[in-house]
Amino acid sequence: MNRRSEGCFGLGRKRACMLRNDFDAIVEGIADNYASPEIFFTDPDRHFPSRDAIIGILADLRHLMFPRYFGDETPTGSDPRYFIGETLIRVEDCLRRQLREALLFRDASACDADDIEARVDAICTTFVSKLPALHKTLLKDVQAAFDGDPAAQSKEEIIFSYPGFFAVFVYRIAHELYVQQVPLIPRIMTEYAHGRTGVDINAGATIGEYFFIDHATGVVIGETTSIGDHVKIYQGVTLGALSTRAGQQLAGVKRHPTIEDDVTIYSNASVLGGETVIGKGTVIAGGAFVTESIPANSRVSVKGVEINVRQPRRNPASWEL
Amino acid sequence: MNRRSEGCFGLGRKRACMLRNDFDAIVEGIADNYASPEIFFTDPDRHFPSRDAIIGILADLRHLMFPRYFGDETPTGSDPRYFIGETLIRVEDCLRRQLREALLFRDASACDADDIEARVDAICTTFVSKLPALHKTLLKDVQAAFDGDPAAQSKEEIIFSYPGFFAVFVYRIAHELYVQQVPLIPRIMTEYAHGRTGVDINAGATIGEYFFIDHATGVVIGETTSIGDHVKIYQGVTLGALSTRAGQQLAGVKRHPTIEDDVTIYSNASVLGGETVIGKGTVIAGGAFVTESIPANSRVSVKGVEINVRQPRRNPASWEL
Amino acid sequence: MNRRSEGCFGLGRKRACMLRNDFDAIVEGIADNYASPEIFFTDPDRHFPSRDAIIGILADLRHLMFPRYFGDETPTGSDPRYFIGETLIRVEDCLRRQLREALLFRDASACDADDIEARVDAICTTFVSKLPALHKTLLKDVQAAFDGDPAAQSKEEIIFSYPGFFAVFVYRIAHELYVQQVPLIPRIMTEYAHGRTGVDINAGATIGEYFFIDHATGVVIGETTSIGDHVKIYQGVTLGALSTRAGQQLAGVKRHPTIEDDVTIYSNASVLGGETVIGKGTVIAGGAFVTESIPANSRVSVKGVEINVRQPRRNPASWEL
Repeated sequence: MNRRSEGCFGLGRKRACMLRNDFDAIVEGIADNYASPEIFFTDPDRHFPSRDAIIGILADLRHLMFPRYFGDETPTGSDPRYFIGETLIRVEDCLRRQLREALLFRDASACDADDIEARVDAICTTFVSKLPALHKTLLKDVQAAFDGDPAAQSKEEIIFSYPGFFAVFVYRIAHELYVQQVPLIPRIMTEYAHGRTGVDINAGATIGEYFFIDHATGVVIGETTSIGDHVKIYQGVTLGALSTRAGQQLAGVKRHPTIEDDVTIYSNASVLGGETVIGKGTVIAGGAFVTESIPANSRVSVKGVEINVRQPRRNPASWEL
Repeated sequence: MNRRSEGCFGLGRKRACMLRNDFDAIVEGIADNYASPEIFFTDPDRHFPSRDAIIGILADLRHLMFPRYFGDETPTGSDPRYFIGETLIRVEDCLRRQLREALLFRDASACDADDIEARVDAICTTFVSKLPALHKTLLKDVQAAFDGDPAAQSKEEIIFSYPGFFAVFVYRIAHELYVQQVPLIPRIMTEYAHGRTGVDINAGATIGEYFFIDHATGVVIGETTSIGDHVKIYQGVTLGALSTRAGQQLAGVKRHPTIEDDVTIYSNASVLGGETVIGKGTVIAGGAFVTESIPANSRVSVKGVEINVRQPRRNPASWEL
Repeated sequence: MNRRSEGCFGLGRKRACMLRNDFDAIVEGIADNYASPEIFFTDPDRHFPSRDAIIGILADLRHLMFPRYFGDETPTGSDPRYFIGETLIRVEDCLRRQLREALLFRDASACDADDIEARVDAICTTFVSKLPALHKTLLKDVQAAFDGDPAAQSKEEIIFSYPGFFAVFVYRIAHELYVQQVPLIPRIMTEYAHGRTGVDINAGATIGEYFFIDHATGVVIGETTSIGDHVKIYQGVTLGALSTRAGQQLAGVKRHPTIEDDVTIYSNASVLGGETVIGKGTVIAGGAFVTESIPANSRVSVKGVEINVRQPRRNPASWEL
């Protein structure tokens, strides 16, 4: 055996430390686990949509709506319509392929090819037709961030670098697919934004205009949340559900709160439950845990912060509390 | 001087703005800092393990356990053992190299080459032999997520896109190396997951079956934490230590809590301290700060949420509180 | 029409589902939105600084300060000055180009080329001259992490893998540009760190020596925050501003708190407001929401944690609370 094969595969040494039979038993053990229904390795007819292609669609839509921020699009003095049209055609083509994969993955047996194509057509047409209005809505979100954050030196800075804005951008696109019952793709989109920003907005949530998430990391907005206009939330805020251990029995039920217009929710507060309504104009203090409705124009604070004198630290190894 | 050299290195202009002597002094200043013992630039015998290679090992293990989710593995109608065996051999070879680097980095003087190889053999054999059971455990974690989240449309969606599941996947692998006292590599693995998901699970923690972290961002689970079966925690939950300023004196001491079976902990709650035990079946409200033990089947809530009427905002420049 | 053109652009099918006029109307709708002043597609004179180039500067500075941790720099037994000098020259050249772009983007009309070059020279010279001291400060931050975290097995592990340390590294560099009124680049730097670590430190904040952020995800430190020496904060801590809806009127005002020496702030606590001062040696409990000053050597805790008996779960579909 030459040095390279030993270097590459370590077979010589592995035989010394693991008997051939032991190794085979490990392979068999993993092969046995493949009988689990969610492992579709041996099913040639199932294919996952491509995460990379879906990220490519989001990148194209970002170029389309905010040209020259993230790429090297050539500026056109007079007519941007060539750039817009060409980008839109590419988005539609890529989306069409991923829609086919997602619909087939979810429901391989029930559909014939023509049904799938008809659904793909309908979804694509509706999606693309909503883009101009969605673009306008996003420009309002930029304005909300600019009005809401004295540290923003320009609107360009918000578009280019605010993670809260990026998460809302991805959510608004994913939502248009969610409402058309597209499987998998909305989740792949919002989890991509989640990974990049720490903001987990389920594509099913409904969110009004002029929405601003400041600093953004750790925000969670659940699937059946409903949010009005001019709402501002801070990092670590959860708009969530109460816990259950029989999840699938509650799919489709309204489990997440309703947040009315002009509400402000400070950092790390949690508002939970499908019947919880936070009334218009209310302000919720940071760290609050709210599971009941709050009337309009309320200030929700947490009493009970206690301040005691503390002995100056003597032993650096002691616990600080 | 031609334009390109000026463009590339700016030497012409730099000389105009920074005297040669000034620049030399800056270089000397940084060179002096290299005397610090953690800067090993001048020591040819120390090498860090390769982060990229370690990420590659995790990617291979993910392909092995969830084939065709993240790559383009060819489906096999009859026999997946060739794929499993070939992937396992590659994992073992790569791991072997990184183990060597990590053991030598930690302890370059104390070991001779044969000792290192014997430890590498022992660690690898044990690690690989645990993979089938670890695979089974991960499939139970998928089930826990499916039962715990009504928004999950399928188990496939959880495997493919839930960041909490990815963090637990990486933790369970890193833990098998941590218990064999492997330096550096477990930390590199869990910090990779931390960077991608916002979930920081120390490889030293002990975690039972059917574990689910929902939404996930901001979760911290410390090194000496012990968690039972069927535990569910939400984003922002800390299972941590009390602060100390003499860290190394407390290495090895149990500093993090024990969480018994069937506990649920809501968003942004913190449970701290090595003697803190959360009894079986207890539910802890979001935002709670718990530093003492809680009996079984308790409900821990935070009193003192106060609701006051708030004047509608008149001046938009006023502070909202 | 051949299969490939249909496959690539889907034109045949698209015409079937979307009339040519509809598609044109969508293109026009987006083109109309380009009239918004923050869309500079049609302005050939504005260019954004390059995010990739700025990330490259940070990577070079990290190699410079922590050689052989993140790259394959050749060790030199005797003289690291060639490596230092060559890296510094490259950093300065790249920074110079990005400074030009940033200054021109912000203020295209007001400056002539000579003014811009003079500012670029001054900023670069000052920035580079501060690097040796900044390097020393970062080595003290490593020490603070090592003293503050019993789970740290070595200082090398902190430098290589602690996200809190990475965020502080990027902040300290960005801050040196912020104090020289550089637009855009400090924000691009800190948002890069934010995306990788979940830690959002505004480059305008002032932070003393021996600063340690443990676990790190979700920390926010606002623009006008002032932090003393030997301060330790945990994941999810916000040092922030009260909310306003007229952001730009408050730009420049001190809106964020002052944290004196030796303060410890536990996970997910929020300290808000420009007049809020946390006195030397104080410890703040996790989840606390503090909007008023706290005297030195205080212990701030949250009263009102309530423990009730809870009936063991019978129906797994019930809400857990």
